[in-house]
Formats: sequence, structure tokens, C-alpha cells
Amino acid sequence: MHKYAIGVVGASGYSGIELCRVLAAHPGVEVRFVASDRWEGATVRARTGIAGAVGGLSYVPHARVLKAAQDCVAVFLATPAEASMELAPALLERGVKVVDLSGAFRLSDPAAYPEHYGFEHRAAGLLAGAVYGLPELVDRDAIASARLVANPGCYPTAAALALVPLLRAGLLTDESIVVDAASGVSGAGRQASETYSFCEVADDVRPYKVLRHQHTPEIAQSLSRGARKPVRLTFTPHLLPIKRGILSTASVRLAPGIGAGAPAEALRAAYRDEPLVEVLDGPEQVSIARTVGTPRAAVAVSTTDSGFDPGRVIVVSSIDNLLKGAASQAVQNLNLMLGLPERTALEPAPGVSP
Amino acid sequence: MHKYAIGVVGASGYSGIELCRVLAAHPGVEVRFVASDRWEGATVRARTGIAGAVGGLSYVPHARVLKAAQDCVAVFLATPAEASMELAPALLERGVKVVDLSGAFRLSDPAAYPEHYGFEHRAAGLLAGAVYGLPELVDRDAIASARLVANPGCYPTAAALALVPLLRAGLLTDESIVVDAASGVSGAGRQASETYSFCEVADDVRPYKVLRHQHTPEIAQSLSRGARKPVRLTFTPHLLPIKRGILSTASVRLAPGIGAGAPAEALRAAYRDEPLVEVLDGPEQVSIARTVGTPRAAVAVSTTDSGFDPGRVIVVSSIDNLLKGAASQAVQNLNLMLGLPERTALEPAPGVSP
Amino acid sequence: MHKYAIGVVGASGYSGIELCRVLAAHPGVEVRFVASDRWEGATVRARTGIAGAVGGLSYVPHARVLKAAQDCVAVFLATPAEASMELAPALLERGVKVVDLSGAFRLSDPAAYPEHYGFEHRAAGLLAGAVYGLPELVDRDAIASARLVANPGCYPTAAALALVPLLRAGLLTDESIVVDAASGVSGAGRQASETYSFCEVADDVRPYKVLRHQHTPEIAQSLSRGARKPVRLTFTPHLLPIKRGILSTASVRLAPGIGAGAPAEALRAAYRDEPLVEVLDGPEQVSIARTVGTPRAAVAVSTTDSGFDPGRVIVVSSIDNLLKGAASQAVQNLNLMLGLPERTALEPAPGVSP
Amino acid sequence: MHKYAIGVVGASGYSGIELCRVLAAHPGVEVRFVASDRWEGATVRARTGIAGAVGGLSYVPHARVLKAAQDCVAVFLATPAEASMELAPALLERGVKVVDLSGAFRLSDPAAYPEHYGFEHRAAGLLAGAVYGLPELVDRDAIASARLVANPGCYPTAAALALVPLLRAGLLTDESIVVDAASGVSGAGRQASETYSFCEVADDVRPYKVLRHQHTPEIAQSLSRGARKPVRLTFTPHLLPIKRGILSTASVRLAPGIGAGAPAEALRAAYRDEPLVEVLDGPEQVSIARTVGTPRAAVAVSTTDSGFDPGRVIVVSSIDNLLKGAASQAVQNLNLMLGLPERTALEPAPGVSP
Repeated sequence: MHKYAIGVVGASGYSGIELCRVLAAHPGVEVRFVASDRWEGATVRARTGIAGAVGGLSYVPHARVLKAAQDCVAVFLATPAEASMELAPALLERGVKVVDLSGAFRLSDPAAYPEHYGFEHRAAGLLAGAVYGLPELVDRDAIASARLVANPGCYPTAAALALVPLLRAGLLTDESIVVDAASGVSGAGRQASETYSFCEVADDVRPYKVLRHQHTPEIAQSLSRGARKPVRLTFTPHLLPIKRGILSTASVRLAPGIGAGAPAEALRAAYRDEPLVEVLDGPEQVSIARTVGTPRAAVAVSTTDSGFDPGRVIVVSSIDNLLKGAASQAVQNLNLMLGLPERTALEPAPGVSP
Repeated sequence: MHKYAIGVVGASGYSGIELCRVLAAHPGVEVRFVASDRWEGATVRARTGIAGAVGGLSYVPHARVLKAAQDCVAVFLATPAEASMELAPALLERGVKVVDLSGAFRLSDPAAYPEHYGFEHRAAGLLAGAVYGLPELVDRDAIASARLVANPGCYPTAAALALVPLLRAGLLTDESIVVDAASGVSGAGRQASETYSFCEVADDVRPYKVLRHQHTPEIAQSLSRGARKPVRLTFTPHLLPIKRGILSTASVRLAPGIGAGAPAEALRAAYRDEPLVEVLDGPEQVSIARTVGTPRAAVAVSTTDSGFDPGRVIVVSSIDNLLKGAASQAVQNLNLMLGLPERTALEPAPGVSP
Repeated sequence: MHKYAIGVVGASGYSGIELCRVLAAHPGVEVRFVASDRWEGATVRARTGIAGAVGGLSYVPHARVLKAAQDCVAVFLATPAEASMELAPALLERGVKVVDLSGAFRLSDPAAYPEHYGFEHRAAGLLAGAVYGLPELVDRDAIASARLVANPGCYPTAAALALVPLLRAGLLTDESIVVDAASGVSGAGRQASETYSFCEVADDVRPYKVLRHQHTPEIAQSLSRGARKPVRLTFTPHLLPIKRGILSTASVRLAPGIGAGAPAEALRAAYRDEPLVEVLDGPEQVSIARTVGTPRAAVAVSTTDSGFDPGRVIVVSSIDNLLKGAASQAVQNLNLMLGLPERTALEPAPGVSP
Repeated sequence: MHKYAIGVVGASGYSGIELCRVLAAHPGVEVRFVASDRWEGATVRARTGIAGAVGGLSYVPHARVLKAAQDCVAVFLATPAEASMELAPALLERGVKVVDLSGAFRLSDPAAYPEHYGFEHRAAGLLAGAVYGLPELVDRDAIASARLVANPGCYPTAAALALVPLLRAGLLTDESIVVDAASGVSGAGRQASETYSFCEVADDVRPYKVLRHQHTPEIAQSLSRGARKPVRLTFTPHLLPIKRGILSTASVRLAPGIGAGAPAEALRAAYRDEPLVEVLDGPEQVSIARTVGTPRAAVAVSTTDSGFDPGRVIVVSSIDNLLKGAASQAVQNLNLMLGLPERTALEPAPGVSP
């Protein structure tokens, strides 16, 4: 099989390491370089235990990315948003496709960046052409032909997979949508910070960035696209004392005249042919453990037309924030961009030979 | 100081152990007996490490409670609801006051028991006279004169402390109230069950009893009393991979014409003279670690009148489910019933001598 | 590629699930059946999330194993030792090869079973022919031609990989060997037991079965074979508040005249061509996280010829107790028995095509 | 009761916070100042939730300690060793007694400091007069009359409590002593470091500073004093994924002619009148959970005269590294120095009145 040359920038972050791990077993790509300033000079194997050819690579500094990328078809940017905003245009100019795991190209409105990301967008011209890479919910042809894919955020992936099918099917009222979600600590990235030290996080749970998390506009954008009109949204994230995984609990309301079984049916219909989204029978079956370490999401819904809040719909979803919320979704997108089977390297492929 | 004779039934459960721990340092009571079928014959010290006089007691079986209680002024029932329903009437008949930590006497409507607790209430005549023992929110004189106190549930304590002041002050619309909450595993009690085994709980978070948790009617009852009209309520509990602590995140909506600062003011006013409820500056300061191991609750609120959901109010609260959500609140109630200072044994008392 | 028909008994235990996970991606085998009384009738996918052909299988009861196995070349027994002792002879009689993950066939001396395992060995005739399947330390040809492989225990794998190379090289004195080791809770198997409930294990560490753990004779047997004479051994296991992983710290003493660098050299020499044993530069680099989720062991040694205990050698090793300590080592053994590349399904194979 | 004026330096570290917590409930002292550069200006209550008079104090910077201490009888130094080495002489000169929780004054030999602590001791003249404050093992009169108490390290406390009684009784051979121990992360102090970040510590266990931990000379000094001759010692510490607690497993050997029951008897005899050291029936009962949150140590021993290593003695001990391993032991020492009952503020005192 032909092997496409690719690179990984930000390869020492938690998402970057997972990218390397997935790509180490990917039969259709050759990782030409991995870049990290922090670990410059060390081998991937020494730092991460990853075996094989990827394990043998040494990290190059970010300053050498453009040179290293010159023979690559595509590059993953697992970098902070401002770094991605600088690197992506330079790579695209050189004909290198980009899958960006940061928020730099996810919001279509450049005016949203100063408020939510704290910087003026200096590559705003790319926003219109960037494709939001959530394969199960967007046009896969658009991803396949994209030069720049904005890989969705972790919370937005979990929330959109839970709610977009219900919104598209017109099952919900206009009541505002409440998404309470919780994430493992790796969602904050690799940090030398007291806030994320073991003693400050263990045995604790706390909300953070209440009413002002930067994923709020991204979730609102996804849900509004699904509803084909603006939605009202409250998103409250919480920090969990676990390394990985996101659980999202969304509270929405059934539109008048819609049967209580409709939300579950809508989820099943939306994901019938989507092996990477597992629809379970009830929210109690959806757990972080169900998806951590896998490229899949799990979703389920419960609806009541009686009790203390008739018409209430609870949609629960879970993903591994580093995989379906970052690295494995990025590889799904790359596979589509390269014309490879979408789940290459993501699921055991029956019939594969050693 | 005079010492009141008391007893603890269900003393080997997690709440029962915490009761013993608090009472071991209580200068105004003498624990006459501790009852547990599971640990019959063993000493409290051997099983729990609790020192002092309480540590020297041996557990008696539940069958001997009525005899053991005959000289007691009051008894704590840290037993399952059905056991409490049987024991409380027998103790009350003998003139022994009861603080019941189960749900057996919390709901004023006997008809709610079959649906939410799975049994017909066989002591329904006691429900009208049972006082709901949440001292910061109910009439303390009623607790002081009660013969039977229904000690609130853990989730209901966290939710009511967060929301009742806002409802009483008339700050909220009639929009339904969404309470997403999460609890440490001790909330499920001592269990020899695969579901609560370490390997099934660690590194995981999952919702449970979605739209059907037995604390829902209790929360609704508290909030409706606060609002002086029925509220609509959705309550979604989650299981956390920690031993103790509850975090509750409530999403409600500001009534028209009410300023964004009003909810925080209402909380501060309600708890100004309540040392066991700490009002913090923002929800991000409220964490499980802030209250675990203490008899206190922490609450804070954030309100927005712009953004993706104007009028949204997020109230976050935390308690130790075994203390303010069970044992220390029970001792608060006992202290009131015995005419002792409410926080005896619950806070370091300045001026105490060895 | 030809696919060998195999089966898995005890498929709902933690090792059994890992076996199914590894085998689901194994290109050379077809899993014909998975047996579990506990989960009879359910699908593997529903219970474990494992995708693909293995995920589609339904668990059959243990009573149907012999029938189900009749077309199989080999069967894994991930069953308690007494169950394995009954099943293995019956399978072998039918011409089915067996990889047994229990202790039933690990000790060559039948007289050791009553003391250490609590039962008389009723298939003692098989012990002489059973091959101890630790590929990096035993004769691989013997495994390849075995009909019955006794898959090593988790602690014994960790201890033997650390110490056998040093013993074989004659670097150590006869001083007794101290192995202190600690294991994640999955080592105790799936349990509905208060002892292994979350609240009893979390935030705690404790020793167990001190001076009487059933792995002691197995470790002593491995080390004595390595030393070609009986060794004295003290083994103290501890329970850790994590799900998986073993860390073993062995304290031994350098023989007179041997240089302080010799132990590290011996480890590097022993594992130079063993991709599944990683020799690291110092014990501080060996951690449980280094190997959990991988089929590899990590080992390192530190030696001092001065300080408070000259001649002291500390050898630290780690493995995933469910993989190199159980399931992945079992697949290594199966691969050898079937004539397949030893690491099939265990490491990303460069050049594999989707 | 008279209240002695005291101060706490390094009050924002984990041990410093526990000191404040214990002292907040201490009836015999008045905390005049708490010093911390990190939290200068904030109140104790805001940062830690500690209530009462101590909660109302604001942290002063370390530069103001000498001034703040001028009316104090005694000061706790919960500071790094080099800071303690500077502060202690200045305080002593002003007539203020010092309980130092660092290692600065624990080793009697000044020559040990450069190698084990990395600095030349610039107050070596104080070493001879500093009293090692392990009340259960040293002369309490010496502590009572000391001006400078060196509060023992956490690992050394756990190891000495386990082994000194056996050494004093002459029960052990001269074989070298192996102490494998493991500590919760708070033992490393408050850190903004990637090494101690949640994601690097959770789900992991690893050894550190193998054969070169700075507590090794301190343990050797304690054990050698107990044995009245130099001992050989290997100490291997491990980092645990929990916040607090130490478990120490010591392997030693019974001297010829000593009965297997002698070690247990020696422990019981040594601690018969020591309420803060609990001797349990077997090592399996000693766990970190048994002592965390308490001022007590737990110890137990198992001895075998048969099996794979006849004569082997395993002594297991546990303490809360922040309490018996730091803050509560420091208060024990202060109580002795002030002539107060030794356990004041450390155990529930029967008969205390509100």
C-alpha cells in the first residue's frame, strides 16, 4: 500500500502523543517528522514507549516544521490556537494539507475570537474555507476535498453528537439547552501548574469557566446549524479527578405532539451506519469507561412525559477527549482527505494480515 | 456538663461510622449503644479506629435496639428506609426521640412512597409530625420541639441550600429547574456489589436512575416550599470515582426585571449568620474538596444577562454527603432537640479546655 | 491468511475480556466461542464494547465448552485454578491445545497445591508435560510444541523478568531475595465483595497474604531454575488503588568481585532481542504507567557499592497484570504454538494493510 | 486556661495547613501569626476553609517572621531545610523555641548535609542540642526541655516506629534491613511541576531516588540508635497515586534462638501505653486508610520460621505523612515543650465541655 508522508506538530502534548500512537499502527501513512520544542532531540520511544518506526523518530523543534513538512502531504497541528493560526497558512501556502486540532479555525465568525480566545484572528481569510471535521454530522465530501480541516473540540463533539440528530429531526422546543459536562484532566493539556497538580485535583470535582468557556460558541454553532436557527445554550464544564474522558448530560425539551420514543429513534436512525457512534439503550449505560481508549462515542436518551417535569429529554454522551475528542477524530478526517477507508487504524479490521 | 444518653442504629454503614466519629468528640452526649448486625460483637475501635469511650463499645444486633434504647433520650437511625419505618414508631412509643437519616419520614405525602421508595408506608400517621431537619432553611423551633426529625437526603440538602434562598426571594421564573449533581460512592452505602467494586467505578463517571431517582420528590418538595408553589424539576445524579462529596450544579432563570447581582445578594443574605453555609465569590471556588471532612456546605452563583443564554443563573453547591448530607446535619438536629449549642462537636469551639 | 479456530473460557473475567480484545484484532485466529456463565446469552459487544466479529459473539455457558470446542485448535482457559484443572484434561483428550491462565499447571510439584492453592491436584499427571509459558525466559521450542501451556502469574512474570538474567549470570549472592510488589485491583478478578468495593480500596494501600501468597512458590520455582539451585525468597504483595498494573521492587545482593555495572549489562544482554521487554536506564523510569495497556514489561536496575548497604542491587519491573501478566502473554504463547509470528496482534506491525 | 502565643512559618504548604487545622482546635495556644510568601495578605479561611480565630488570620510574608515572633513562646517552621537553617538560629537567639519540620536539624553529623541535602550546614553548632522529636521512642524529658526540636521525617517516623522496638529488644540479626515504602503525593509538598501533575501521577506507581533518598541517613541514625550499633539499611521509596499516607514494609531477620512470637510481643510491650501507636494483629490490617486523618501510627508484624525464607520478619507500618509524619507529631512535641498534656488537640478528650 502507498504510504502518504505526514507530520505531527505539538507531538508532546497529550493529544499529540495519542496521534503518534494511532499513527504508529496506521498502514497508509509514513510519519516523516514529529515536532516538539519541549522534547527536542529525544526519541518518541524514550518519552512515550511507542514502538515501531514512529517510536524511532526524534522530536524536531517547531522552528523546523516548515522545512520538515516540505515533502508531506498533510500535517496535524496539535498546537495552541495562536500557534495553529500562524502555522496553518504557511503550510497551506506550501501545498500541505492541515488538520488543526486547536480552536483556531472552528468558528466561522472571526469576530468571536477576541472574546472567546483572547486574540484577533490574523488568518481570518481561511475561516470560510475551513471544514469542521465531525464526520458523522457534516458532509464527508467536504472533508475529503478540504485543504484545512478544523478538528472539533472535545466538549463540542460530545454535545453535538448527542443533540444534532434531535434538532435536525425537529423534536425539540426552543427552550434553552442546558449542557452540563465533565472532563478528565488531560483536557487541560500538559501543565506544570499547581492548579492541575495531583493534590489539587484528586478526590475533588469543581466547575470552571462557568458561563464563559471558549467551547460555548462552538457548541452553539454546531447546534444552531443542526436546528437551522439560533439556539440558546448554557454550557457548564467541570473538572474530574480522572485522566481522560468526557461525559456530557444535556437537558432539552420535547416539542408538543412529539412522542416520547422519538428522540431514541432519531439517535438510532442518525447513527445506524456509523460504527464510531454507539447508541445505547439508556443513559445509565453511557459512561466514560465505555469509550475511553476507543475512537467511539456513546450516546443514549431518556424522555419523560410525566413526573416532575413532563416533556423533559436527557441526552447523555461520552467520548475519550483525547481520541474521538481529538486524535482519532483527526485521523478519521485525514483518512477522508487521503481517500482511505475512514476507520483505517481506528478499529480492528477483519481480514488484516500480519 | 450533663451528658444525654443516646444510641446509634445502623452504626456500621458509612453514615453510621461518621456519626460515631462526631459523637466520640461530643461533650454533651454519652453514646450508650451502637447497633449493627454486620459487626455484632466487634468493638468500634477495632473496626473503625475511633478512640475514646465510643471506641470501646461493642456493636449490638438490631434485635436488641429497643432494649438498649430504654434509657436513651434520643436515637439516631442510620438504617434503610424500611427499617427506619419499623423502628421509629417503636422508639417514639417508648418516649425516645428519633433522628432518622433515611428517607422514611421526609416526604409529607404517604402516596409518594410506593412509587419512589417501593413500599407502602406503614407508619404514615407519623409523616405529618415529622420535622424536616435542614436547620438553615426551616424553623429551628420546630426542630427543637420535634420528637421525630427526618434528616434530609444528601442531594436534597445540596440542592435546597443552593436554590431555596433564590426562590424565597422571588428571583426566578417558573422555567423548570435543572439540577445536575454528582456524588462520591459512599452515597450508595456499604455494598458487596460488583456495580460498586473498585474496577467498575474507578476512572469512570456515569449517570444513574435518570428521571427516576428517589430524591427527586424530596428536592421538589423543598423547592416548592421555598417558592410557595409547585416547581418543575429535573434532577440527574451521577456517580463519581471518589469516596465522598457531592457537587450540585443548578441551572435556573432570572425573573424579568431582576438584576444580575440579586442571586448572589440573596445567598449572602440568607447565610450571613449561618456559619455552616459558606457563600463563595464564584462557582469556580465551590468544589467537593472545599467541604469534604467538614460539617459545612459551600454555595456560589453566577448570572449572565448576555451571551448565549441571557438570564441564566448557575448555582453550584457542595457538601460532604456523609456529614452535612447525613451525620453532621443529624448532630445539628440533635443539638437543637437537646437544647445544646447547634454546632457542638461540629466546629472547633474557641475556649474549650482539655 | 489461514485462520485458526479458537475459544475463550472465562471470557467475562478481566483477563478474559482482555483476551477477547486482543483476539478481536488478531489476523490469524477466528474466535469460535466465548464462554461465561455470568454473561450467558449477552453479546460481547453489549458487555464490553468490543467491535468486529468477536463483538458479535454471544457468551455460552461453561457447560457447553466441550461441545463448542470440538472444532477448535486451541482454547484459552481464563478460569479459576480448580475449574482449569477439570477442563484442561477433557480438552486435551479431544485434541484441543490449551493455554491455561490459572495457576493449575504452573507448579511442577503436585504436593505444593494443597498448601498454596487449597486443593489436591486431580490432574497431576499433566504437570510434567505442561510448559511454563514465559517466552523471554524459557525455551521457545518447548512452548511451540506444547499441548498444554501454563501461562505465568502476574507477580511471577514481573519478578522473573527482573531477576532471572542476574541469577543466570551468577551475579548475586545466596542472600535471600526480597520482592515487594504491588498490584492494581483487577488482579483480584471480578468481585462482588466489600473488600474490593470502591470505598474500601480508594485512597488506600495495604499488604495482603503476607508470607503466604500463592504466587510465592511460583516465583521461587522460576528464580531457582534461573539460579540452578534453590533460592530463598520473601514476597510481599500490596493492593493499590488503581485498576491495572504491577510494580515489583526486588532487593538482592551483588556477589563479591562483581562490578556494580554488571546487573544492568546482564539485563541489556538478556533482552537485547526481546521487543516485549524494555530495559530502561534507571528504576525511576520504570512505572506502572509505562506498561499499562501494552504487552510489554519494563525493567531497570540500580546498584551501589557504597552508602548504607554496599553491594545492594535494586531491580524494579512493571507490567500490565492483565496483558503481559495474563492475556497478551497468553497470545504470545498461542502464536508460538500455532507457528505464527510471536507478536502477532500484540504490536503495530509495520506494513499491515487495511 | 493560659494560652501560649505561637506562630507558624511555611503555613501554606501541606504540612503547614495541617498545623493550622490542628492548632485551630487547640485550647492551649493562641496562634499569633501565620507566615507564607505565596499567600501573603489572604486569610487562612479563604484559602483553606479553616474556621475560628486561626481562619481569621492573614498570612504575613516570611520577611516579617522575626518581628511577628517576638512575643511568641514557640514557632513551627514548616519550611524547606535551608530556610529552616537560617530562621531557627535567629528565633532561638530571641528566646523563641522552635519545632522544625524540615530535615535541617535531624542529622547529628553535619558532614551528612552536603551529600544528602545538597548544602553545607551553616548552623552546625545547633545540631548537638537539637532533640529528635519522636516522643514514643525518645526521652520525653529531653523534648520537654529542648529549645530546638527536630521533628522527624515522614518515612523515618514510619520506619522507626516499626523497627526500633525489635532492635532494642535484640530480636534481629545483623542482616541488612530492607525498607520499601510508599507515600502519597503531598509528601512532595505543594508543587507547580509537571512531574506531580495529576496526569503524570494518577493510575501510576513508581520508585524514586532509589538508593539516594535524603531520608536514608535519618532512618539509619534512628535504627542504629535503637540497635546501639550501626545497621545496614536499604530504603526504597515509591510515589503513590493518593494524596496522603505512607505505608512502610520492612523485611528483617529473626536472630537465632528467638521465638517467632517475640517481634509481636516486643511491639505490644513498646506501645502498650502509647495511645498514638496502634499495634494490630497482622500486617494485613495495617493500611494507609487506617491512619490517614489521624495523629496515630499503625504497626503489625508477621514472622515465619518455615516456608521459603525461614526467620523472615515483615513489619508493616502506616501513618498520615502530614500528621504523625509532620503536623500532629509537631504538636505532640510542642505540647511536651509547653508542659501540656501530650495529646492536647490530637484526640477527642472525654469530658471536654463546650
